[in-house]
Amino acid sequence: MPGYTIGVDYGTLSGRAVLADVKDGRIAASVSLDYPHGVMDRQLPDGTPLPQDWALQHPRDYLDVLEYTIPRMLRESGVRPEEVLAIGVDVTAATPLPVTGEGTPLCFLPEFQSEPHAYAHLWKHHAAQRLADRMTETAAARGEKWLEAYGGKVSCETALPKLWQVLEEAPRIYDAAAYWVEAADWIIWQLCGKPQQSACSAGFKYLYCAPEGYPSGDYFAALDPRLRHVMQEKCSLPVIPLFSRAGSLVPEAAERLGLRPGTAVAASIIDAHAGLPAAGITGPGEMVMILGTSACFMVCGEGYHPVSGCYAVKDGILPGLWSYEAGQNSVGDAFAWMLRSCVPASVQQEAEERKLSVHEVLSERAAAKQPGETGLLALDWFNGNRSILMDSALTGMILGITLQTAPEDIYRAIAEAVVCGARTILDHFRDSGVEIRKLLVTGGISRKNPMMMQMYADMLNMPVYVPKTFEGSASGAAMTAAAAAEAGKAGGRSVREIIRDMAPKENTVYLPDPGKREGYDRLFRLYTEMSQAMAREDSVMKRLLAFRQSL
Amino acid sequence: MPGYTIGVDYGTLSGRAVLADVKDGRIAASVSLDYPHGVMDRQLPDGTPLPQDWALQHPRDYLDVLEYTIPRMLRESGVRPEEVLAIGVDVTAATPLPVTGEGTPLCFLPEFQSEPHAYAHLWKHHAAQRLADRMTETAAARGEKWLEAYGGKVSCETALPKLWQVLEEAPRIYDAAAYWVEAADWIIWQLCGKPQQSACSAGFKYLYCAPEGYPSGDYFAALDPRLRHVMQEKCSLPVIPLFSRAGSLVPEAAERLGLRPGTAVAASIIDAHAGLPAAGITGPGEMVMILGTSACFMVCGEGYHPVSGCYAVKDGILPGLWSYEAGQNSVGDAFAWMLRSCVPASVQQEAEERKLSVHEVLSERAAAKQPGETGLLALDWFNGNRSILMDSALTGMILGITLQTAPEDIYRAIAEAVVCGARTILDHFRDSGVEIRKLLVTGGISRKNPMMMQMYADMLNMPVYVPKTFEGSASGAAMTAAAAAEAGKAGGRSVREIIRDMAPKENTVYLPDPGKREGYDRLFRLYTEMSQAMAREDSVMKRLLAFRQSL
Repeated sequence: MPGYTIGVDYGTLSGRAVLADVKDGRIAASVSLDYPHGVMDRQLPDGTPLPQDWALQHPRDYLDVLEYTIPRMLRESGVRPEEVLAIGVDVTAATPLPVTGEGTPLCFLPEFQSEPHAYAHLWKHHAAQRLADRMTETAAARGEKWLEAYGGKVSCETALPKLWQVLEEAPRIYDAAAYWVEAADWIIWQLCGKPQQSACSAGFKYLYCAPEGYPSGDYFAALDPRLRHVMQEKCSLPVIPLFSRAGSLVPEAAERLGLRPGTAVAASIIDAHAGLPAAGITGPGEMVMILGTSACFMVCGEGYHPVSGCYAVKDGILPGLWSYEAGQNSVGDAFAWMLRSCVPASVQQEAEERKLSVHEVLSERAAAKQPGETGLLALDWFNGNRSILMDSALTGMILGITLQTAPEDIYRAIAEAVVCGARTILDHFRDSGVEIRKLLVTGGISRKNPMMMQMYADMLNMPVYVPKTFEGSASGAAMTAAAAAEAGKAGGRSVREIIRDMAPKENTVYLPDPGKREGYDRLFRLYTEMSQAMAREDSVMKRLLAFRQSL
Repeated sequence: MPGYTIGVDYGTLSGRAVLADVKDGRIAASVSLDYPHGVMDRQLPDGTPLPQDWALQHPRDYLDVLEYTIPRMLRESGVRPEEVLAIGVDVTAATPLPVTGEGTPLCFLPEFQSEPHAYAHLWKHHAAQRLADRMTETAAARGEKWLEAYGGKVSCETALPKLWQVLEEAPRIYDAAAYWVEAADWIIWQLCGKPQQSACSAGFKYLYCAPEGYPSGDYFAALDPRLRHVMQEKCSLPVIPLFSRAGSLVPEAAERLGLRPGTAVAASIIDAHAGLPAAGITGPGEMVMILGTSACFMVCGEGYHPVSGCYAVKDGILPGLWSYEAGQNSVGDAFAWMLRSCVPASVQQEAEERKLSVHEVLSERAAAKQPGETGLLALDWFNGNRSILMDSALTGMILGITLQTAPEDIYRAIAEAVVCGARTILDHFRDSGVEIRKLLVTGGISRKNPMMMQMYADMLNMPVYVPKTFEGSASGAAMTAAAAAEAGKAGGRSVREIIRDMAPKENTVYLPDPGKREGYDRLFRLYTEMSQAMAREDSVMKRLLAFRQSL
């Protein structure tokens, strides 16, 4: 069944589409578009100001990405519409938005344009932390069984605390919303004309636990009586399996995109989760770590092992296996903060003179140091801590600063903290019974920063595999599309066969340096101790935050 | 007795001389010189590398300052040599150096030019910390009475731990040294031809406790048998009172400086301590805080009150009173570190465009924030903590960093930490029974940074007085010179009368803002708690340092 599939990856700041050959995954074309509205974290398009911790997106941008990228890919590659077998999308999550029964986002309606809650609530919208905490407390008090599968805590980055925030702060929006739908599923709806939710977003972001389904009405009523029927009233979309066919491209969408009506459309997948097939993982025990602004860790396993602070979802990525997922909130973001806020002009000047990036100059200097040599210890919680503490209110710190501390020392300390955070997660998975025998790393940092990759290998004491050619989550979305196109067809391949055929074949391998083991172990112990001290309820970090919030 | 006196102030990086009218303190001329050798903390002039924590000066620079500044002042002002009544010097301390019996610094001798220990050991030479610790432990174990007057701890910045380091690491230098003399006293020796030590350096930096004198030979023998007679062998200079006449200018020096032989030479004073008369303080309960690269706090009192972590010296500054002294190791240095190491180009660009300094841009933005608003908490121990913890190995930290943390937030957090450190010291003085009823602040920051001055007033909850015209420690040295010239002369004034006449008369006053009291109290409590946690022997901060030192 020769042909191509389209995978569209919706990230935090831009969307990127690829046109992949279903035979070997070769990318025939790739086009991306920065979202015209970007991340709205200070104000709405009309100037309405947003409070701290808010982060919204404009759903118009999602459609713009499709209409901009797909026709261009066809033109550039010369691939004909009839050669395109299917389309799949992956989206950063949870990014839910309120829509009408027909699927119109409320923010498209003139009467709601100045209403912040009418827009898509991006994953890093953290303003519902208080409600997430109450969801956790109530679930724990009631002994809700599903809580364990969500790491023992409801994250404010998931969909339902955000929905509760809408009810509390903008009841008019809550009432007007027929659905509180994940952006990924809303895009699929626009393509194939029917509202559905993929098992991936349902399981990872909407507390859908097979076979029981969503938490009970009694649980929601214990939060707020108005929420008793929230799932039926606002989230009642049929749940469809990953790698399945959601439907066929409707004529109107086909025309706008320059594709044929009836082209297969795959169930959506979360952007990070698409990275697992994209890295070529087809079975249990192989972890993928995706390094972007944040980091995502995913691994599949044969049985169920509750892992506190992490998610476990049956069939959430690969059919038939439990998917385990954890995350670090700031990786690339932490370095970006440093570059924006505390790199002196002297370093920028050296970078310009040597025609290197600032990252390259700082990594080069940082790589020359041993673990412990900077005298610094950092906590990487610049945007809170997702796994394993699930506390978005935690903050970063740098300890050990002297008058001799140089920019590369701070850079290295941030890198060490990020890598210590990763080790915390891997250790915790293993302690909980989830096997990790191989580690693949993808994302921009994996190819741009060999210093970091070596540090991961040394700190984790295992080889780190970085695919040499990697098209990112978009290629994972293209694999879901291939599966949707081939499902039930004569000669159609299994999901595992599709992944194996379409995934990259060659890796760069970083081997751990036994000479650095002891130093990294020592650093990790100090990191762990400082983490535990600061994560306590009465820590100075927590009370400092309470102080700021009281102003 | 009309005329002028010369005061020469030797700082960390430069020397500055003033020619002051003894009638009213008016400055007729002022000339300064950056030390040609600067602070040697990486290598000697011949390239011999220096280990970490070393900081040396070249005594040739001290002579260069005299020979450069004094003739120029006379030329510029038109003051005739016979109108110059006396010369006084103040020097940053302890800055001891090994010299021959004739007063020749060992580093001037060809055979010792590549020997680091042959140079002057600047106050911030911290490489003798280990030996300072052993001096403290031994004194405590033996119940040495003098330990209490030195705050319960021997600081590695004082003279004797540095001398012990010379014995341990360079016995050849130790043996060749006839005297281990303070730079201030060595300069006076060069001027008036006889070796003496002022009560100020003896009391504050050489453990000289009147009336008992230096610690006993038994104590020194308990440290190292070779040290039993160290004070007689290496430090046996007669101790002379402050504000007294050390002698008269010898002809050779007079010729080089363009002054008359026989001109009075005053006993030396420590640079910081000269700031107390320079600010116009003549009696007990008036504290002066001098803000430079580091901060010095001095106040005189009528009785003896041991203050842990601070010094108490009878007659150490004003005759007849106990002088109490405390210090913070990094104030201007902390901001300088930030400007050098973590201010982004965007801030520099704004400063250039607005024709402001980077300090002005950052203070302006920081001043607009409330206590607690940055969400940050810092410890100001970038160069260790002198008072009240007396631990040069402590380090700085910044807690509460998020992806929104801006450069002005870090700037404000450093300012808040420095001011919290000052409050720790004032609270501690008062808790120990030393009265502080008025606070005068001098030094560059006092005139350049109103944001900081207001923060001191708010945090300390007392008015802050900043002299409008202030010539710094050099004018205090000129006052010691006036006292030396007038002592025992008909019509000669008392020390208090001289200070009153020559000191500045007008102050800028910053009044505490009652509305900020609660916020600063809250911040101070968090600072205190974090300080106590990090100062513990088993803190992560201490073990992180041990880790670096073990590499």
